[in-house]
Amino acid sequence: MNITQSLRRAVQINPNGIATIDGDRQQTWSEFAQRVSALAGGLTRNLQLQQEDRVAILSLNSDYYLETKYAIAWAGLIAVPLNIRLAPEELIFLLNDSETRVLIVDETFSAMLPAFEGKLTSVETIINYSATDSTKSIVAYQSLIVDSEPAPDANAGNDDTAGIFYTGGTTGLPKGVMLTHDNLVHNALNCLNGLGYNADTRYLHAAPMFHAADATSNIAVTMLGGTHVFIPKFEPEQTLQLIEKQQVTNCTLVPTMINMLVNTPNARQYDLSSLKRLAYGASPMPEAVLKGAQELIPNTEFSQAYGMTELSPIITLLAPEFHDFEGPFAHRVRSAGNVVLTGEIRVVDEYDQPLPNGSIGEVIARGPTVMKGYWRREAETAEAKKNGWMHTGDAGYMDDDGYLYIADRVKDMIVSGGENVYSVEVENALYQHPAVESCAVIGIPSEAWGEQVHAIVILHAENSATEADILNFCKEKIASYKVPRSLDFRTIPLPVSGAGKILKTELRKPFWEGRSKQVN
Amino acid sequence: MNITQSLRRAVQINPNGIATIDGDRQQTWSEFAQRVSALAGGLTRNLQLQQEDRVAILSLNSDYYLETKYAIAWAGLIAVPLNIRLAPEELIFLLNDSETRVLIVDETFSAMLPAFEGKLTSVETIINYSATDSTKSIVAYQSLIVDSEPAPDANAGNDDTAGIFYTGGTTGLPKGVMLTHDNLVHNALNCLNGLGYNADTRYLHAAPMFHAADATSNIAVTMLGGTHVFIPKFEPEQTLQLIEKQQVTNCTLVPTMINMLVNTPNARQYDLSSLKRLAYGASPMPEAVLKGAQELIPNTEFSQAYGMTELSPIITLLAPEFHDFEGPFAHRVRSAGNVVLTGEIRVVDEYDQPLPNGSIGEVIARGPTVMKGYWRREAETAEAKKNGWMHTGDAGYMDDDGYLYIADRVKDMIVSGGENVYSVEVENALYQHPAVESCAVIGIPSEAWGEQVHAIVILHAENSATEADILNFCKEKIASYKVPRSLDFRTIPLPVSGAGKILKTELRKPFWEGRSKQVN
Repeated sequence: MNITQSLRRAVQINPNGIATIDGDRQQTWSEFAQRVSALAGGLTRNLQLQQEDRVAILSLNSDYYLETKYAIAWAGLIAVPLNIRLAPEELIFLLNDSETRVLIVDETFSAMLPAFEGKLTSVETIINYSATDSTKSIVAYQSLIVDSEPAPDANAGNDDTAGIFYTGGTTGLPKGVMLTHDNLVHNALNCLNGLGYNADTRYLHAAPMFHAADATSNIAVTMLGGTHVFIPKFEPEQTLQLIEKQQVTNCTLVPTMINMLVNTPNARQYDLSSLKRLAYGASPMPEAVLKGAQELIPNTEFSQAYGMTELSPIITLLAPEFHDFEGPFAHRVRSAGNVVLTGEIRVVDEYDQPLPNGSIGEVIARGPTVMKGYWRREAETAEAKKNGWMHTGDAGYMDDDGYLYIADRVKDMIVSGGENVYSVEVENALYQHPAVESCAVIGIPSEAWGEQVHAIVILHAENSATEADILNFCKEKIASYKVPRSLDFRTIPLPVSGAGKILKTELRKPFWEGRSKQVN
Repeated sequence: MNITQSLRRAVQINPNGIATIDGDRQQTWSEFAQRVSALAGGLTRNLQLQQEDRVAILSLNSDYYLETKYAIAWAGLIAVPLNIRLAPEELIFLLNDSETRVLIVDETFSAMLPAFEGKLTSVETIINYSATDSTKSIVAYQSLIVDSEPAPDANAGNDDTAGIFYTGGTTGLPKGVMLTHDNLVHNALNCLNGLGYNADTRYLHAAPMFHAADATSNIAVTMLGGTHVFIPKFEPEQTLQLIEKQQVTNCTLVPTMINMLVNTPNARQYDLSSLKRLAYGASPMPEAVLKGAQELIPNTEFSQAYGMTELSPIITLLAPEFHDFEGPFAHRVRSAGNVVLTGEIRVVDEYDQPLPNGSIGEVIARGPTVMKGYWRREAETAEAKKNGWMHTGDAGYMDDDGYLYIADRVKDMIVSGGENVYSVEVENALYQHPAVESCAVIGIPSEAWGEQVHAIVILHAENSATEADILNFCKEKIASYKVPRSLDFRTIPLPVSGAGKILKTELRKPFWEGRSKQVN
């Protein structure tokens, strides 16, 4: 299978349907395909790229970003979508590590180019989405398309690497996850059903497009001949406006973004009734946030997607009917759902032996969406894919109906006085307090307990609460050994990764400086 | 990917759900999986079969048939499901051609065993579904399962051949179509959505299980943890009874079977309201038959599936909303639908060049469901998969919205006085006459025209009509050069293949004896 088949299908079944809407720009599937094949011609003929050469993209969301992803696949090249939150030094490392030959930037990131100067060891060409004319050092994107003859599909596919997605926003040295055409198309097929896409879907790209999760909708919505709508980056007010204006039907966000939508003062002024399905993932959804969202968009169905980049990225889905806090299946709202159609998951002990249902262990997975490997890191690839199963590093358990419950990222688990405390559970309690806008729970050093549970809390502007108020509230909700021993109020936003995950590494750092806890 | 993943998924998400219902027997997914792994152990340990050894099945439909298919996949063997309409000599050819080591028969076909005696060159063991005790020459199926230790999954998958499906019911020498695990799982994923399967599906295996089309529901319904219901072979009254009794939700039939349901005198006595979706394929559906079916089961949605064994087998689907004879999309009811999610189709000329929309040419297809090849026929495989595309041998055209219209099987097309006459179109006209119960249109020799259009008609028992009545009726419906020049009334049923297709080869034979027309 190949990614470009989805584009040919869109052109065959919906040639005159709207493919992309980006601000005032829009184009049909026929037009989109013409631009993709011309851009592929530009990359391979004008810029002389060879099969499997790397092309990096450093850009906010746009129709150009989607064109570029398809052109890279069409030309048999490898995409390196870069995390937009990284510092120049980090980006230089990724560009050199991947031996990228072409770097594409948009207007926002063209400002970062001077910081790269003299430090890139393999980049030969820089393309700028916003340049009007090509210069000696910069190729203008639009001119490249206009000046190029369309190239035929290079017929890359199956086990060929389609993209290298660097992970490590929340962990140590970044690793390049190689995902193949087969990986990404199978993920799209798994989700097409589960996320409620169809030929009438109008999908809003609001979460950042560099993330592997975005490829899900790229391919699935295209395969169905639906419509892609873009917002440069997530901003709650603009997102609400765009849902109303473009009659968006589907969107995928992370819980922190959904929390921001819920907390937008005039959110209820918008007509959000077109939104049929809101998917969320990347981190657990506090129940209070989900309830707030259900209140804001009562006719929208919710789907939870759980996974990781190494799984292309989705491995379980929680269906809309289980987003219910009442009735016989109320407990399932705390689950990550069951395995995607083509996948297999198990919960195992430290010797990789399956554990009985209900026992917490490491979640492992296999199937056609398991990554090809880490780019040029064979030992780490072998370790991660030990015995043919991807080891997620997440702790969880399975119930008797095959529903997976994620207890915590293994590294976010707090061991206090010999008891395991799952930070997610404590955060869920905190979020139920009406004064709490957002929060994070981490383990900090304790003479007495090894680690102690520590909370960092941001209050709603119009609300006030004392540390004692909040801790007493927690005592009613969770066992006393889980209740935070200490609490910091904070007024600036919590640090988040490019994908929107709260960076607990950052929060833990000041407490652990010079100590032995692995805070990778 | 592998076929057995679907079974592990069913066991994980629905261990206590009903897997199979066959007469008075029923079992859960846990029980089914235990029997499958024990049978796999019986085949590989007790009977010493090695990876890729062939196991043939000659049986009417049953839960045992499904267990056997899964056990063969689980053990890494290759299934050879045999067409139940074939004569002993034909079956002997297939068993020897495939070098089958184990032949499994049910009670019905155990009666055929004496005819095989001394003629099978590779079969070492015969298993009988209905034998109560094993003898020197026959292994009893139930004892084999009870006496065997469960085997672990052999981890066959991807490009490994899962089955050899012999074609040639309607054509010359049979060819063994090798379908891989990937082929069959992709077909299931393509159809899962398109045929409306979900976790609550109760699928009736009424069409014969030897056909590749049956694998669609085997895998898709299992993957979702649904329920399989079996009828030994299609019989209209029993089918209607079983839909009512077992609350069947989904079924796939061929048009001749649907025509028989519609013509069952007391069909309207049954409560068929559980039937959500009726899929049909293998041959064109005369409009009068579809209308009759819509009248009989007004709340059932219809899906058309078009394909061939070499495409695992489905390559286009016509969605329920286009089974409508009125409104702006009324013309689409005559279409075979658009390409499945992972597929690509084109209409090409004799030089394999794509034709413009609206022009009739050969339909070709590619994607992950194209067969691995014909068993031990490399030249024919290369010819069929020329330029990477499966050449279907069907003539058709595409409209501007990507809907495929099949004009005819190329070999069923009649060339009369230089005009192409598509037999399907003439049959559609005949079926609209109220006295016609079934019919077939073929080309027969003509001094004047090369070929002339000839109709064979069976009238409803309670109706009478003359040749002139029917031909005059046709003249109002279709151009005069398409109207049959001759017509035979027939009272015995038309000859059909095991899959339910009308065997035009048989009908043409007496007219062409000793002449040059290719009637393969």
